[in-house]
Amino acid sequence: MKLAVIGVGLIGGSFARAARAAGKVSLIVGFDSHSDGLRRALELGVIDQRAESAAQAVAGADLVVIAIPIGSMREVLREIAPHLPVDAIVTDVGSTKADVIECARDQLGAAFARFVAAHPIAGSEQSGVEHSDTALFLDRLCVTTPVAQTEVGALQRVEALWSAIGCRIERMTAEEHDRVMAAVSHLPHLLAFALVAQIAGQSDASRKFALAGPGFRDFTRIAGSDASMWSEICVSNRVAIGQQLRAHRELLEELQRALDRGERDALRRVFARAESAWRQMPDGR
Amino acid sequence: MKLAVIGVGLIGGSFARAARAAGKVSLIVGFDSHSDGLRRALELGVIDQRAESAAQAVAGADLVVIAIPIGSMREVLREIAPHLPVDAIVTDVGSTKADVIECARDQLGAAFARFVAAHPIAGSEQSGVEHSDTALFLDRLCVTTPVAQTEVGALQRVEALWSAIGCRIERMTAEEHDRVMAAVSHLPHLLAFALVAQIAGQSDASRKFALAGPGFRDFTRIAGSDASMWSEICVSNRVAIGQQLRAHRELLEELQRALDRGERDALRRVFARAESAWRQMPDGR
Repeated sequence: MKLAVIGVGLIGGSFARAARAAGKVSLIVGFDSHSDGLRRALELGVIDQRAESAAQAVAGADLVVIAIPIGSMREVLREIAPHLPVDAIVTDVGSTKADVIECARDQLGAAFARFVAAHPIAGSEQSGVEHSDTALFLDRLCVTTPVAQTEVGALQRVEALWSAIGCRIERMTAEEHDRVMAAVSHLPHLLAFALVAQIAGQSDASRKFALAGPGFRDFTRIAGSDASMWSEICVSNRVAIGQQLRAHRELLEELQRALDRGERDALRRVFARAESAWRQMPDGR
Repeated sequence: MKLAVIGVGLIGGSFARAARAAGKVSLIVGFDSHSDGLRRALELGVIDQRAESAAQAVAGADLVVIAIPIGSMREVLREIAPHLPVDAIVTDVGSTKADVIECARDQLGAAFARFVAAHPIAGSEQSGVEHSDTALFLDRLCVTTPVAQTEVGALQRVEALWSAIGCRIERMTAEEHDRVMAAVSHLPHLLAFALVAQIAGQSDASRKFALAGPGFRDFTRIAGSDASMWSEICVSNRVAIGQQLRAHRELLEELQRALDRGERDALRRVFARAESAWRQMPDGR
């Protein structure tokens, strides 16, 4: 199987490594708009060949994996559409799904039936092919969000590949995916960015960061994520994130009132709801 | 040296273990209002003797470490004050300092000169003596917040002990401590509790928690902290936390506006400030 990876960063690179390790590919061609990263991917043996464009990468491919920032999806889909082999399957790894599916529907024409939207819930605050890792997807969840037009065969092949590299598969609608991710991924990123930006803007910022303990490091780890990529994700899923943020701001207003009045019990009730839910979470204690 | 530990939980228990391992104590007497925890502390060999009250625990002690929730400080200080040996040094491990110092000033009389307020910046979302760990304080920061009346000898003895069990020491005023901790510890805890409580209250909460990735786990780890203890910390430091929360809510309002309008660049500017600050943080990448 010839695999084309468009966007050979942390996710694209890890997918290439893992697919190769699983014995699922015979040739991996990569393209990345950052030529440095593409060169490193070749040097590291993550890809076998580098293409000069996304269009060139997909020529003769059996499977095309697009692992680029959400904001570039439309342009890349438009570019590759005329060059896709007639049987090629196209999949992505984007953090939002409804928006990506609409782009694909607009751009791919008949090939849209072989577009399988997917989102492996993995990654880290690190980026770049030098951090790519065969084991990145091991025991992670991969969400697929097929639509009515999606060919069952294409869906099954993509899911089988994610399974082969270690993911559990969960199918759902793009809308459900985006609603869930708004709450458990996108809003937390926005909040972590906000807290670190807030402290960074204070006159004693370096003192505060120096005195921060391990709880702060964990809480803000996702604030080390790529700002540009995450601003695109937020805009792409702005309705669902906007709803969660509004609910969050209402709760914070309530907590501010309790705090200002010194109402310990009001604070404790909210905190206890959280503590209890946290202890029942999978992987919670 | 005879050590009295009042509150033999994660922190008190870890302090007892570490002080013993460092060869700094000859006898450790413990008291805890939870008799189960106290019994386990004795069974585990964390303490040598159990006292029936805080007053009994401090009899004959050279050093008294109070490791209890902030909300119980006043009562315990009042109880032990008449029973303290004349040369005994008293220290605490509380997460807020100005409030604790005022309690000690009110309750300890002349012994206030030998009260050394301290805060080891360590811990975890786990609690209880069964999780206590000799290495909990290794390479952590311990903040001391002496006041004008604090005897230098008492301060030095307490600092030497924290050093001996692995802490770096940093002296500052209680006000600075509380202002810094409001930003890098207390507000993050409040925000993590708020986010988990918010999602827990939604109809598809279990689905959302099940689909959460590693970033969510890290972000919300501190929401597994003790709700009762943290509501007391928040009330104790409510002015400084209130200021930080107000600033945070203003920033979230700004981000909501950008989100609703789809202003990617406005989001990216805030996110990039955070990403850049995060990368310059000690222990950042």
